[in-house]
Amino acid sequence: MIEKKILIVSGTHGNELNPIWAADEFKNLINSSIKSKSFEFILGNPKAYKEGLRYIDVDLNRSFNVKKTHFNKSFYEINRSEFLIKEYGFKAPRSCSIAIDLHTTTSCMGTSIVVYGRRQSDFCLAAILQSKFGLPIYLHEKDDLQTGFLVEAWPCGLVIEIGPVAQNYFDPDIAERFLVILEFLGDLVSDLENYMNYLPSDIDVFVHQNSIDYPRNDNLEINALIHPLRINQDWRRIQEGDPLFLTKDNKTLIYKSKEERYPVFIGEAAYIEKNIAMSLTKRELIRCEKEWINIFLNC
Amino acid sequence: MIEKKILIVSGTHGNELNPIWAADEFKNLINSSIKSKSFEFILGNPKAYKEGLRYIDVDLNRSFNVKKTHFNKSFYEINRSEFLIKEYGFKAPRSCSIAIDLHTTTSCMGTSIVVYGRRQSDFCLAAILQSKFGLPIYLHEKDDLQTGFLVEAWPCGLVIEIGPVAQNYFDPDIAERFLVILEFLGDLVSDLENYMNYLPSDIDVFVHQNSIDYPRNDNLEINALIHPLRINQDWRRIQEGDPLFLTKDNKTLIYKSKEERYPVFIGEAAYIEKNIAMSLTKRELIRCEKEWINIFLNC
Repeated sequence: MIEKKILIVSGTHGNELNPIWAADEFKNLINSSIKSKSFEFILGNPKAYKEGLRYIDVDLNRSFNVKKTHFNKSFYEINRSEFLIKEYGFKAPRSCSIAIDLHTTTSCMGTSIVVYGRRQSDFCLAAILQSKFGLPIYLHEKDDLQTGFLVEAWPCGLVIEIGPVAQNYFDPDIAERFLVILEFLGDLVSDLENYMNYLPSDIDVFVHQNSIDYPRNDNLEINALIHPLRINQDWRRIQEGDPLFLTKDNKTLIYKSKEERYPVFIGEAAYIEKNIAMSLTKRELIRCEKEWINIFLNC
Repeated sequence: MIEKKILIVSGTHGNELNPIWAADEFKNLINSSIKSKSFEFILGNPKAYKEGLRYIDVDLNRSFNVKKTHFNKSFYEINRSEFLIKEYGFKAPRSCSIAIDLHTTTSCMGTSIVVYGRRQSDFCLAAILQSKFGLPIYLHEKDDLQTGFLVEAWPCGLVIEIGPVAQNYFDPDIAERFLVILEFLGDLVSDLENYMNYLPSDIDVFVHQNSIDYPRNDNLEINALIHPLRINQDWRRIQEGDPLFLTKDNKTLIYKSKEERYPVFIGEAAYIEKNIAMSLTKRELIRCEKEWINIFLNC
């Protein structure tokens, strides 16, 4: 049995309902089993959940280890992030060494993994999940505009991201997909040593390069949508000359770079306000190292 | 050429983006044509649109001809509904006799028509649309809990409802489906007499009977989701014994009534707050009457 605990966070965005549902189901499932000792469960943003919003003042999943200023110190999410670390972080009463943050997206991402930066502990867990389920991994790094993610505040952590599903929409099929992952984590903690044998030789990773915004007019209003041939094509290669956007007067704007990329979070509803129409990634094979296992086990 | 004008309303719910896009596209398309004289365009709820919300104080599409009270008189939507009637209603400077209100839903409704009550002018227009495109018609009536719909404030009017699509999500395919309907309305106004020949002998209508809520626990929290075999099955018959909900502990709750029904708006995200998990309808064939044409032409 794993000694360190896993924190399952759902509702980090208050309008993503299916993770909350699945976490509750899983909690009930393992309630009377020894597995329950390896998990803590927390609703990330209860106030936003109650109001059916992504967040109250600022995105909770950009609010961890953020410098507190006169401007943001009263923000609900800034204080909530401190509370979560105080309660579940290092040396906390319910200290967890691994954080799994459950999210949904309106983009057609399927079931996927997001990791932040190249931490070997995260790679180890992501490798086991990819080896088990074949899930794509989005490695988010070198993006100064998007920082302060929840799982970065724990020694090991990753996001499970499932879509497409609308905000505030209960979908039993999506909830079931989260539950499958959670049940696997339950098996993992019961038989960790054995699972470590399944570390594959390499992982296939989609590495963040940059994000692109919608074309906008002089008033900064969006004046072209994602092209019908590109929408819902997350994880599929885009290359020079491929249709990218379609303007209001029906003109196709093409992808002009010579760099082949793999777009993700195409058209994500919550990213319009972040000026992101999609993020572009580059595919990379990363060799798994045996030492990841020790790092993971000791995190 | 039709003499009376059609009001195209988009963004009645501020987080339904694709109708706004399609209306703008259509406006540009007919800009220099004579057809443009037959249309007025208005963004229903600009304040909610700006904030990415369905509404500010109260649902605009439940705010028409609502009694003004001390309690609601300062509500943005109550005043907005008055403004819209003052600007585009009977005897208004830009008076329109027909209102087409464009909506999206997170439910799997496809492209559909909603009419409110049994007005013959609405039936005439719905019949022509159903005869042209085969669209299902949801007739909403006898529901004291849901009133004050926008189109009821005009002599003739109906809602075009398209889904599934997430709130605040731009989807060029959904926008295109609205545009097809708008272009047809453009053809209709140019050659109305001819189109009236296409009035079918009957229309196939799904008549509202009642709405049902999610099962809830003693704290009024939802404790069962729409069953995986029922989600996304809008317009499909449900009968005694069919799976309806699935509880958190994996128990299937069945549909118990002997009355065959056709559920619509299954799991619509915006209706959770209205305590509606789905609405149940009864299928009815309504004979089209020749006099509908005169009523429609003179509305």
